[in-house]
Amino acid sequence: MAITSDAYRVRPGGKVSLKKYKTDDMGEFDSKESAHPLTQKNFEKIRDLQGVMYAEGKHALLVIFQAMDAGGKDGAIQSIFTGVNPQGCRVTSFKQPSLRERKHDFLWRHHMACPPKGIIGVHNRSHYEAVLVERVKNIVPKSMWKERYEHIRVFEEMLAEEGTAVVKFFLHISKDEQKKRIQDRLNDPKKMWKFSSTDVEERQFWDDYQQAYADLLEQCSTKHAPWYVVPADHKWFRNWVISDALVRILKGLQMEFPRPEKGIENVKVV
Amino acid sequence: MAITSDAYRVRPGGKVSLKKYKTDDMGEFDSKESAHPLTQKNFEKIRDLQGVMYAEGKHALLVIFQAMDAGGKDGAIQSIFTGVNPQGCRVTSFKQPSLRERKHDFLWRHHMACPPKGIIGVHNRSHYEAVLVERVKNIVPKSMWKERYEHIRVFEEMLAEEGTAVVKFFLHISKDEQKKRIQDRLNDPKKMWKFSSTDVEERQFWDDYQQAYADLLEQCSTKHAPWYVVPADHKWFRNWVISDALVRILKGLQMEFPRPEKGIENVKVV
Repeated sequence: MAITSDAYRVRPGGKVSLKKYKTDDMGEFDSKESAHPLTQKNFEKIRDLQGVMYAEGKHALLVIFQAMDAGGKDGAIQSIFTGVNPQGCRVTSFKQPSLRERKHDFLWRHHMACPPKGIIGVHNRSHYEAVLVERVKNIVPKSMWKERYEHIRVFEEMLAEEGTAVVKFFLHISKDEQKKRIQDRLNDPKKMWKFSSTDVEERQFWDDYQQAYADLLEQCSTKHAPWYVVPADHKWFRNWVISDALVRILKGLQMEFPRPEKGIENVKVV
Repeated sequence: MAITSDAYRVRPGGKVSLKKYKTDDMGEFDSKESAHPLTQKNFEKIRDLQGVMYAEGKHALLVIFQAMDAGGKDGAIQSIFTGVNPQGCRVTSFKQPSLRERKHDFLWRHHMACPPKGIIGVHNRSHYEAVLVERVKNIVPKSMWKERYEHIRVFEEMLAEEGTAVVKFFLHISKDEQKKRIQDRLNDPKKMWKFSSTDVEERQFWDDYQQAYADLLEQCSTKHAPWYVVPADHKWFRNWVISDALVRILKGLQMEFPRPEKGIENVKVV
């Protein structure tokens, strides 16, 4: 493979038009089957690298997932992180904020959920909802959400400088693929519980959300906390891109098992 | 198999003498290999039942692990819960309490970490340390730790009545097996980081800890929150006992996928 996940990283400083990103891209693979062994290998590497991260205790990793409804956040998390020791991996799903959370600033509950050193923290939705739904539905005025991009950039930079690598995946699906997936939820008895009529109602705001995503990708993909636009119509390709990016990021931390206590060679267990 | 994990459940109301529990029991298995397919099947069932628990959102499960040093808590958690979707499984490892935690009652930080509905919460050490190390090392006076058994019983009963199933595993190893495992940590470069000289020092208190365990098992194994004494010298047998117990407990909750929204049959996705 000449192409890596880096092809899907949003370069800081450029303009973003989501129309230019194909949702059904397959990179250089010609089928699901050809990607499978590489993706499985990546899953194993993530598991092993997490083990070293836990032992070393010097770095944390924050992985953020955002997508349109039915974009595959739950599925991606299940595919990629089942297999990682849950003692070293914490998933937080952000739903509607509680009354108490609403009384705080928009970063508060997300900051609380950031992983400590040694841990991979996975956020299913994130502080980016504050420039998505809160913008599209006019929950806060433009004068407020416009300021948030910089607060987010600075917050994520602080995390990175303090030892938490930050990576963000936007799972990019087409409007047709969304329709198909919502339809699946209506037909499959094991998926029906996931269906909410708001998923259908929200489709009328598709273009507004796509614009809000384009803006946040442009504003908040930085060197220390990059965004990836992951082609996500094909779940198997989505999983390859994400797992490839995670392996590269984790390897880049150059972690190692910590040195044992001094004098360990003289210890006698009695 | 005629024997189930229930053979290792501590009956409420009886006397407990740990000497009567074999640490190297193999049940009715004659080898690791003969248990393997059953244990793997249990892991799959736990994964599937957790999926239903998450969807239904009516129950939580709190799984508590306690053991002597090197008793296999980390290993058991890794073996049994890797493979469960981490979005539905939260592991909390309790180390030395922080200054802030010490200013609260002994249940406080453990209560904070209890799983919400839909989630399996795994506690690596627990509020039982308040009647273990705090007793053995005279951190609190006897007049205080003696009262804690009832507070624990009532607390766990409250959890159960409010929808959280509670199950507790004491991983029971022999003093010789502990010696062997500490020695392993000294010899294996990938395990050295786990070695702490306090593990060796604590061995002189072995009998005191065993007595403290016997007392808490006797005092706090209840109908709504049973203790299991898991023979844990053989890791594979430990994993079978725990996984068998978890499958039975999860099945007993009789969970099902929730009904879909009303009118779902008339929904048109446009």
